[in-house]
Amino acid sequence: MYGDAAHWIDQTPIPNEFVEMEIKPTDPKYIDADLVFSPLPSDVARVVEPAFVNADYPVISEASTHRMNKTIPLIVPEVNPDHLDMIEVQRKSNGHKGFIVTGPNCTAAGLVIVLKPLYEQFKIRKVIITTMQALSGAGYQGVPSLAIVDNVIPYIADEEEKIQEETLKILGRKENGVIKDAKLKISAMCNRVPTIDGHLETIYVESDIKLDTETVKEVLTSFRGVPQELGLPTAPDYPIIVHEESDRPQPRLDRLAGSVMGMSTVVGRIRQGADSKSMRLALLTHNTIRGAAGNAILTAELLVANGYIGK
Amino acid sequence: MYGDAAHWIDQTPIPNEFVEMEIKPTDPKYIDADLVFSPLPSDVARVVEPAFVNADYPVISEASTHRMNKTIPLIVPEVNPDHLDMIEVQRKSNGHKGFIVTGPNCTAAGLVIVLKPLYEQFKIRKVIITTMQALSGAGYQGVPSLAIVDNVIPYIADEEEKIQEETLKILGRKENGVIKDAKLKISAMCNRVPTIDGHLETIYVESDIKLDTETVKEVLTSFRGVPQELGLPTAPDYPIIVHEESDRPQPRLDRLAGSVMGMSTVVGRIRQGADSKSMRLALLTHNTIRGAAGNAILTAELLVANGYIGK
Amino acid sequence: MYGDAAHWIDQTPIPNEFVEMEIKPTDPKYIDADLVFSPLPSDVARVVEPAFVNADYPVISEASTHRMNKTIPLIVPEVNPDHLDMIEVQRKSNGHKGFIVTGPNCTAAGLVIVLKPLYEQFKIRKVIITTMQALSGAGYQGVPSLAIVDNVIPYIADEEEKIQEETLKILGRKENGVIKDAKLKISAMCNRVPTIDGHLETIYVESDIKLDTETVKEVLTSFRGVPQELGLPTAPDYPIIVHEESDRPQPRLDRLAGSVMGMSTVVGRIRQGADSKSMRLALLTHNTIRGAAGNAILTAELLVANGYIGK
Amino acid sequence: MYGDAAHWIDQTPIPNEFVEMEIKPTDPKYIDADLVFSPLPSDVARVVEPAFVNADYPVISEASTHRMNKTIPLIVPEVNPDHLDMIEVQRKSNGHKGFIVTGPNCTAAGLVIVLKPLYEQFKIRKVIITTMQALSGAGYQGVPSLAIVDNVIPYIADEEEKIQEETLKILGRKENGVIKDAKLKISAMCNRVPTIDGHLETIYVESDIKLDTETVKEVLTSFRGVPQELGLPTAPDYPIIVHEESDRPQPRLDRLAGSVMGMSTVVGRIRQGADSKSMRLALLTHNTIRGAAGNAILTAELLVANGYIGK
Repeated sequence: MYGDAAHWIDQTPIPNEFVEMEIKPTDPKYIDADLVFSPLPSDVARVVEPAFVNADYPVISEASTHRMNKTIPLIVPEVNPDHLDMIEVQRKSNGHKGFIVTGPNCTAAGLVIVLKPLYEQFKIRKVIITTMQALSGAGYQGVPSLAIVDNVIPYIADEEEKIQEETLKILGRKENGVIKDAKLKISAMCNRVPTIDGHLETIYVESDIKLDTETVKEVLTSFRGVPQELGLPTAPDYPIIVHEESDRPQPRLDRLAGSVMGMSTVVGRIRQGADSKSMRLALLTHNTIRGAAGNAILTAELLVANGYIGK
Repeated sequence: MYGDAAHWIDQTPIPNEFVEMEIKPTDPKYIDADLVFSPLPSDVARVVEPAFVNADYPVISEASTHRMNKTIPLIVPEVNPDHLDMIEVQRKSNGHKGFIVTGPNCTAAGLVIVLKPLYEQFKIRKVIITTMQALSGAGYQGVPSLAIVDNVIPYIADEEEKIQEETLKILGRKENGVIKDAKLKISAMCNRVPTIDGHLETIYVESDIKLDTETVKEVLTSFRGVPQELGLPTAPDYPIIVHEESDRPQPRLDRLAGSVMGMSTVVGRIRQGADSKSMRLALLTHNTIRGAAGNAILTAELLVANGYIGK
Repeated sequence: MYGDAAHWIDQTPIPNEFVEMEIKPTDPKYIDADLVFSPLPSDVARVVEPAFVNADYPVISEASTHRMNKTIPLIVPEVNPDHLDMIEVQRKSNGHKGFIVTGPNCTAAGLVIVLKPLYEQFKIRKVIITTMQALSGAGYQGVPSLAIVDNVIPYIADEEEKIQEETLKILGRKENGVIKDAKLKISAMCNRVPTIDGHLETIYVESDIKLDTETVKEVLTSFRGVPQELGLPTAPDYPIIVHEESDRPQPRLDRLAGSVMGMSTVVGRIRQGADSKSMRLALLTHNTIRGAAGNAILTAELLVANGYIGK
Repeated sequence: MYGDAAHWIDQTPIPNEFVEMEIKPTDPKYIDADLVFSPLPSDVARVVEPAFVNADYPVISEASTHRMNKTIPLIVPEVNPDHLDMIEVQRKSNGHKGFIVTGPNCTAAGLVIVLKPLYEQFKIRKVIITTMQALSGAGYQGVPSLAIVDNVIPYIADEEEKIQEETLKILGRKENGVIKDAKLKISAMCNRVPTIDGHLETIYVESDIKLDTETVKEVLTSFRGVPQELGLPTAPDYPIIVHEESDRPQPRLDRLAGSVMGMSTVVGRIRQGADSKSMRLALLTHNTIRGAAGNAILTAELLVANGYIGK
């Protein structure tokens, strides 16, 4: 039973309906379901996820394994719902009803939500990112306490590459049956800080045109995506919440902001950059909700709404 | 006595010779000294420092009051020792032997040490900075514990402006009896993190020419300044220490690095930026040593060596 | 308006109905209400609370001012609801319908809930307490971050005296129109630790009789009070939750446990003490809920149920 | 080489003379030395330490394996140097020149230094202990950061039993060729708090006679042991430092106090307990210095001074 297997560590006790859930082998022949969520380690995902595809399952994967595959969509529902067209490409190529849809790295998830309207409205050409990431991003055993008390670690293995390449793919567009990367110079630098949840990022964006803070605020505040239009259950009313106070967003105070806890990205400190064509801001994303499970659930809702599941 | 007045909070107990030091009024008529260190609040410094100048005292100020005055040098001894020529400009204008020399904001201090060789060797045109600053930078009562446990605060009042303008002044050069700002686009974004000492900064620099990591490392490692040439007592052997390990510099581990504790700036994570003409790195400076008292003492040693004090 | 006056710092934004609440002078002539909650500083409470009593208001005070007054009850609703009889003593003496009821120090609140069944069932004679108290107990500006990062402060001003004397009063009984202290030796030692909410206490109790862990667990688990019998809205189903896992209660994981968040006291690590007549355990109380506002609300509900308010 | 094998994490870089030290098998036939320090895991120590004894080596062990063996002394040099007589008992029994001397658990080390003079002068009968222990006591990977940010863990596996039984042995005396436990009721309760180094303990002691704070302070302050009399190099001038300020000892400020950094135990908050025959105080010990390596070195110096090594 799940209750026996899980090392449950949360402010709320394990819900009763979870305690008695049966744990089954990760093999399609033991499973009867409409879709599969896969939060597997990447090497395991490499074997298990294709097996489910071949058994005609839709697979929503949080593993990094297939994220950069050009026919597998990497979905943030508000940003690139049209990339789901790749599902048909996959089906044609595989000869199965099954398919894989992936979700991004926890830091890229909030970043692309903010970059999407900026990229479209202001012809952004360059993005310079510095992150301050929470401990939960590394897993329960990921960061020893002695490593982080009175400290910051200016490095997270493979994270910068993931953020850079995933962002370009998510902001990219379909061309000839594959996803082409967005044309955008990008550089990320990642730090681990002693917060529990909530990845904070400062970004610097450069455009070909003049940017002013009021227009940027307006564009970010008014951003809505397909999940909002469809009224999907896990879609927050506002994908981006712009904070006017000078010292926000703060991880502990803002990570759960919004109408669906942890699903909005909170932005603040919108200011001119080094010249009139550049802009700075801070953004905060709940790494285990929008950056992981929450985004996967919203993706599932989008798949259902689009008829990809349960026919 | 100092021992009665001070609220001493340090791992080492208050030294005996400090306990019995007499506390005198901040008025030149009660003081007999070769020079004056002024760590006063900026509004008090505005009145007191000129009074000492008029009484023929050399004043080394850590207050922000006079930092941006165009005839008052803002000194980091390894970076702009030639700005001390402004002393004669001041003396001529004031008609006194006294003068003011200032030291920079704690975050700018380490930054300019790293930028100096980059700016000179690689024609840097733009610098994008994100800081993660220690609690001690805000003073003992500055950051309530409830504000920072499990949190980061993405704002420090006035800090970004100080870093930007002070950096341009320190890297600037003398022209017609004043200091002209360096030609450099600069943008800083400041965050408070729960470290005790040591300001960590990630920077992104852009040049007109191609940059490669090995040359950058070499230029930073081989940087020496006048204090090193003169062998000043508080001058560290290496103003910049380049760390090769992937996860350094870290505040708790590296803030006291070097031959004179807390006086070196530690650099790591030197990597290509968004294109071949840009570069990223992380740097760490001990904010209360190189960023304050230590820099002031090294400046005093430089003044003595140059004959400005004690004649 | 409250929204303007408040410096609101919480994970949830300020509720709309609070924003527009009018702030009125703390003077009975401006107020029209059924009862008064007083979370005032103790010196202000000394003046304001009697003024409301004289204007016939029931006052529920969280200030320390009147806690030790022998005719003013110090109420934890599960522990000493019979002390409310003192209200009539007050009314007789004051000649007004108004009265004051107080709530205990945040650390004493959870302690007495646990001690009550132990004291009654096992003739406890001595209690030795060590606390590890959260930052929020000191107020927002109470503990500078520099004081507590990588640290514990083994002292909280006046706290030990309050815990000791309030515990004896709350466990005491009415005799001749006053409350007589319980006969119990008690010693508390208080420490501040870097947790946000939740006071953890280890206690050692000594009895005249043999104690065994199973019986103690049973007595604690089965404890119910008048609020549970009456089904008061803010009464948790279980005033005491006994945790069986070896490493609980933990402040971050357990401070919100129970059917009414923050109102239960969580107990764990029940073990034999230095001999067969002593016992050790750890207990955790949410200091700003059960230790303050939550206890005050439950007290108000008890007053209403007993006909003291709103006649 | 040690420099390659070690994952060195400290504010000071690895000393050059350590970098090139050769690492040899833990087998007597590869070793040529005057004595052996053994900081091995307890199961490895069980095999390796006796092998060195049989090869005529003096072994100073920090493992818990042999601590409670009745003919193996458990030494805190200021407290029970006479227990070294057990060495001759071991030699007789083993037929070798080799022997094992152990050092205590890191929490017991400071505790017994404080209890020794109290036990001897005031006929202490009972000790109730609550600890707040540093992260370094658990080893680098011991406590995940997610477990301890905004938290306290009220449990450390096996620690309470070790503290209790080791204290009784160290305070015990030799009788008929074995060490007999002290007659003392003792109960310890252990908590992990987010400090880096320095175990803080609050204790409650009960005596058969009246205790007053001034006499207790005097007895603690004037305590000296054999290491002080002999002037051993690692012996601090004062084994116990009594702090008069109300809020000390604090781990971050006091863990390195004294003439030999980390070797003194700092005591504060000496106050009456629940009655006139009881007393409370807080004590702080540097767990990796006095509680481990420092105590082992001082023990080695004591062995040399007593002629047990190097004849």
